[in-house]
Amino acid sequence: MPVRGSRSRYFTPITEQLEIAGSLHRLAAELPLVCPHTHVDPLVFADADYRFGSPSELLIIPDHYVLRMLYSQGVPLEALGVPRLDGGPVESDHRRIWQTLAEHYHLFRGTPTGLWLREIFEAIFGITRKLTPATAQEIYDQIDESLRRPEFTPRQLYQRFKVEVLCTTDPATSTLEHHQAIRNAGWPGRILPTFRPDSVVNLETPNFAGEIRKLSAAAGIEVTDYWSYIRALEQRRAFFKALGATATDHAVLLPYTNRLADREAEGIFGRALAGKASSDDAARFSGHMLMELARMSTEDGLVMQLHAGSYRNHNTSLYQRFGADIGADVPIPIEFTRNLQPLLSTYGDAPNFTLIIYTLDESAYSRELAPLAGHYPAVKLGAPWWFFDSWNGMRRFKDRVMETAGLYNTVGFNDDTRAFLSIPVRHDLARRSDADWLAGLVIREVIDLEDAREMMRALAYELPKRAYKLDT
Amino acid sequence: MPVRGSRSRYFTPITEQLEIAGSLHRLAAELPLVCPHTHVDPLVFADADYRFGSPSELLIIPDHYVLRMLYSQGVPLEALGVPRLDGGPVESDHRRIWQTLAEHYHLFRGTPTGLWLREIFEAIFGITRKLTPATAQEIYDQIDESLRRPEFTPRQLYQRFKVEVLCTTDPATSTLEHHQAIRNAGWPGRILPTFRPDSVVNLETPNFAGEIRKLSAAAGIEVTDYWSYIRALEQRRAFFKALGATATDHAVLLPYTNRLADREAEGIFGRALAGKASSDDAARFSGHMLMELARMSTEDGLVMQLHAGSYRNHNTSLYQRFGADIGADVPIPIEFTRNLQPLLSTYGDAPNFTLIIYTLDESAYSRELAPLAGHYPAVKLGAPWWFFDSWNGMRRFKDRVMETAGLYNTVGFNDDTRAFLSIPVRHDLARRSDADWLAGLVIREVIDLEDAREMMRALAYELPKRAYKLDT
Amino acid sequence: MPVRGSRSRYFTPITEQLEIAGSLHRLAAELPLVCPHTHVDPLVFADADYRFGSPSELLIIPDHYVLRMLYSQGVPLEALGVPRLDGGPVESDHRRIWQTLAEHYHLFRGTPTGLWLREIFEAIFGITRKLTPATAQEIYDQIDESLRRPEFTPRQLYQRFKVEVLCTTDPATSTLEHHQAIRNAGWPGRILPTFRPDSVVNLETPNFAGEIRKLSAAAGIEVTDYWSYIRALEQRRAFFKALGATATDHAVLLPYTNRLADREAEGIFGRALAGKASSDDAARFSGHMLMELARMSTEDGLVMQLHAGSYRNHNTSLYQRFGADIGADVPIPIEFTRNLQPLLSTYGDAPNFTLIIYTLDESAYSRELAPLAGHYPAVKLGAPWWFFDSWNGMRRFKDRVMETAGLYNTVGFNDDTRAFLSIPVRHDLARRSDADWLAGLVIREVIDLEDAREMMRALAYELPKRAYKLDT
Repeated sequence: MPVRGSRSRYFTPITEQLEIAGSLHRLAAELPLVCPHTHVDPLVFADADYRFGSPSELLIIPDHYVLRMLYSQGVPLEALGVPRLDGGPVESDHRRIWQTLAEHYHLFRGTPTGLWLREIFEAIFGITRKLTPATAQEIYDQIDESLRRPEFTPRQLYQRFKVEVLCTTDPATSTLEHHQAIRNAGWPGRILPTFRPDSVVNLETPNFAGEIRKLSAAAGIEVTDYWSYIRALEQRRAFFKALGATATDHAVLLPYTNRLADREAEGIFGRALAGKASSDDAARFSGHMLMELARMSTEDGLVMQLHAGSYRNHNTSLYQRFGADIGADVPIPIEFTRNLQPLLSTYGDAPNFTLIIYTLDESAYSRELAPLAGHYPAVKLGAPWWFFDSWNGMRRFKDRVMETAGLYNTVGFNDDTRAFLSIPVRHDLARRSDADWLAGLVIREVIDLEDAREMMRALAYELPKRAYKLDT
Repeated sequence: MPVRGSRSRYFTPITEQLEIAGSLHRLAAELPLVCPHTHVDPLVFADADYRFGSPSELLIIPDHYVLRMLYSQGVPLEALGVPRLDGGPVESDHRRIWQTLAEHYHLFRGTPTGLWLREIFEAIFGITRKLTPATAQEIYDQIDESLRRPEFTPRQLYQRFKVEVLCTTDPATSTLEHHQAIRNAGWPGRILPTFRPDSVVNLETPNFAGEIRKLSAAAGIEVTDYWSYIRALEQRRAFFKALGATATDHAVLLPYTNRLADREAEGIFGRALAGKASSDDAARFSGHMLMELARMSTEDGLVMQLHAGSYRNHNTSLYQRFGADIGADVPIPIEFTRNLQPLLSTYGDAPNFTLIIYTLDESAYSRELAPLAGHYPAVKLGAPWWFFDSWNGMRRFKDRVMETAGLYNTVGFNDDTRAFLSIPVRHDLARRSDADWLAGLVIREVIDLEDAREMMRALAYELPKRAYKLDT
Repeated sequence: MPVRGSRSRYFTPITEQLEIAGSLHRLAAELPLVCPHTHVDPLVFADADYRFGSPSELLIIPDHYVLRMLYSQGVPLEALGVPRLDGGPVESDHRRIWQTLAEHYHLFRGTPTGLWLREIFEAIFGITRKLTPATAQEIYDQIDESLRRPEFTPRQLYQRFKVEVLCTTDPATSTLEHHQAIRNAGWPGRILPTFRPDSVVNLETPNFAGEIRKLSAAAGIEVTDYWSYIRALEQRRAFFKALGATATDHAVLLPYTNRLADREAEGIFGRALAGKASSDDAARFSGHMLMELARMSTEDGLVMQLHAGSYRNHNTSLYQRFGADIGADVPIPIEFTRNLQPLLSTYGDAPNFTLIIYTLDESAYSRELAPLAGHYPAVKLGAPWWFFDSWNGMRRFKDRVMETAGLYNTVGFNDDTRAFLSIPVRHDLARRSDADWLAGLVIREVIDLEDAREMMRALAYELPKRAYKLDT
């Protein structure tokens, strides 16, 4: 990573602690990036000459963090160039969209998005002036020009960022053609798929039967009932694994788990294929399938990631106009202890099983998640997710989790982003947070410097590699 | 505001940060006070010669924060001069009541009430000795004497405190006679009413039918059914608005929202008039009326304030003896995401609509409220409420809200008090909290000093003026 | 307590604050230890020559904190010498068990267990080398040797630790023979029993009828129905009180309270004796008995402790192999405001009644518990429990509770441990936490040094003595 800000940026401003934090951060900065959970499109690596579009295409239009904040203060999504589902007109002048960002840039003061943007400007593009309405077009030019340079292809940036491995997130029905292409290209970057079957497990997916037809096609197994469905899922997992996948990912509203009797699972799945599943069916099937997916993981060894608690598309009318992922998902309270008890009591001690849990309900950190992770061999706690990938969010996670779960039942950072350019910046913020936290422990004599250095290496590199089985 | 304590009082004790905090605080201290939500009795400004009573009448008897703490340690409310509903004997010697406070003053160590009292003594009355049993009567004398001086009328203090505007909270059935009198008096202070219809919306209000009769009388509209009821509410809102109101206020146990079919709303309201509404009726009607009140706000532009989650009068026997507001209200857990979805999905994007949400369940700050405010144009987050109007409470609010909602989806401080003398003191504490927080961001290079100064001005002055529409 | 680490260990590293914290800690370090809630076996004091076993028996095998962390990282309980219910083979070489701990000692970095072990090594055994695989056997020898020395009997250590009073926790059916023996021995240590009737109140206790037979035998009252059951409980409370008990203790999953009609209580208890109680019966009976036990406390003055919210034996298969208390208990979310309303509205103002509440759901601290404690004379808040007896846990408790409840509605520290050797170490950590917190208040001018010194003494000594009625 190139030079940036002051060396003590973000650290607790106490002299002795600053020095320790600085030395720990330098140690971490030497380590490559492990990216076990991203939403980067594998296409960008499959095409050796791939080019990011305009600055606005890169940093505004696809970024739901940016969109939500601007929308919350009255900027219509149309003005930001977000495509409408009905194909109606939206702003197409990318310089204008950029200007709109600049005019509202104060909204991002003190927010993670504000920090990421600043750090991207500084670290990736060497821009240290502040984005203002007056400087907006100049900065646009500077970014635009950089993006045309040969060293700004995704493959070149992958090397420059010192990424060691990067996992994408892919639907169960994907052909993984880009992953195939990357493997065939002989390029040394390590891009791995992750198996995400939500659309064929959540019975409330729009056009569920259509999704199942896609699954049949991808698996080469005609899904006609529950049992052929299970076989098709297993086939797909094996296919993903053959292309390097080490993990699966599952998004649920509630982490309810409960195994159904065969007959009941068969009945519900049949109703779903016929488009007649009730919402109670969907909830019960979700609970059953988490058990089944855990069972499969104990057999094929794929690490199971669970993301619970996001109420998607809360703003109904906006969803109807623009679709998903435009910044209108809102968390709900989540209970883990009782919901996960059937799954953990069955598979929580299984030798080959890892369950990485992410939450948007911080009240569960100290109450449920840290105690669960501090007992079950299978359970590990994922990095602070989404809104909590922030300076204070990361601090609260460590404050509430580490004493009870222990560092070694956590899995380090993941960037969880589709914005490839923000990856080094996000990792650096997390590493600074870790360094600052560890320095605080050292100076208060909770740990010694030798421990701190090992913990720093674990957080920045070893824990994610091991937990997501990327060390093989 | 007069001189007080050390200049670094309350700030994080790190030298460089102290300097920045001090400079930001000085900037804020120059700004007038905006008081968008108080419970001050408008009478005190309507009467040009109004006099506060004794020190005990001013600072103990009406203050539920003081009462609850003393009661929790065994002091009977009778000993504090709180009137009994049955008219039975209570302490009437105000010097004795004051002595009782002094004897228990240690209970307030480290509490907001303790700080407010100390700051009132120092900043308003120039008393720097500590309140103890030995100094109690001397301090009583000193306050008593001050209160008799001409510069201690509410109108004089309004000027001295540099209040720019102060909103009271008034029942929907109020004639607003004091507000009328203030307007007619030609006094330049700006005292505005706020429309609070709880007693005519909550079907479980004791003697609901009587409240509706008051509403009929006030509105000049005979309320005989649901539709005349809606018309009467709209008439009252227009009346409040004509007298300067810019906002409404609504207290609910749960923020449940759901529009009923007309026929159902008509049926429930009819049962309520007949004294036959069930508690399920009350809950459903509350959910419906929040929708209706939001609809009215989108039409007349009055800002809608929502206070959810206080279980009132928890101590039944004490309630029977002393009535409400004696310190026995206790919060409950609150869910916002699903409860507010019907309302927000309908009105959350309406151009003229503002919904300011207050909570007593801090676990919702980062989980639900900040994400909602960071998406919906209508949603803003109210200042930390009640128990959380405290040094740590304000800090937790900022820590958990600002990164996700952004500063500009919050609305600055409000004092929420009936204790007029505590107003400058509460604002000063909030401003010190803000200055300390911003200084911490500057020194860690999250923001620069220029940003910090703009954010300080926003928090202390601009945000409340704009959010509550007091800038017109 | 002997010499240890640096004098500023654990304190906030700001020079001026360190000095104040140090002086407050020195003040506290002079005070004796009050231990109102422990799980120490009274046998160790009844037998004048009692000897702790091997280092592993002392510090690993019975400690569920140690077991859970090692188990979470794949160490089987068998390898730690934990006895199996089926009597199957487990590791019996205590040096090997110790070596296993040493090999996994990094897991405890930054955890309370890690600090307690280090402080025990240093303060009790004078060992300052770090435990590593290489030093493990040497350290084992050193501890083993110490434990054989005459000054390492529990009675000698009781004096050395400056314990003033220590309460054990004893089933309602206990004969309290060890407590009798201690009283008869003429040894000046003060060891008091605590009445814990969970096994005869929770209808879901395995072999409930058998437990009731034990109760009959202990009370000398044949329990044949609900009324003889109540009489037997009252008899047992009187017996405990005669042997010095000042408190009772109650563990419930939910703090639900509600008085049943006599006929209903009789019916449920009859079904329970016949082994026919449903789980709904059990929940309703629990709610009823909390009312009855509170009623008894208002009569006999025993302080009522309530521990709510631990889902016991979450890992079913492990429970079947090893039984309870092996580190597989996990908290659940808890609601207090409505659940406790019937009890508090009935007994919350009773002059002779104290209810000390402990929770594992920190979200209730500021939302429900501090407001309840800040109103009801009977309610006090217990020390941060279990997972929250940690540096950050204690800090969060103070941060969220003290402003609303006030210090004097809390009850100071309790060690809550069966590990007698950890008692001075746990108290010292709590006192350092308190000193650090108070120093922070002093330096920010929230309180003055005089207040801080009184608050320090209260936290470290006076509050627990008074709240648990150990001052008589």
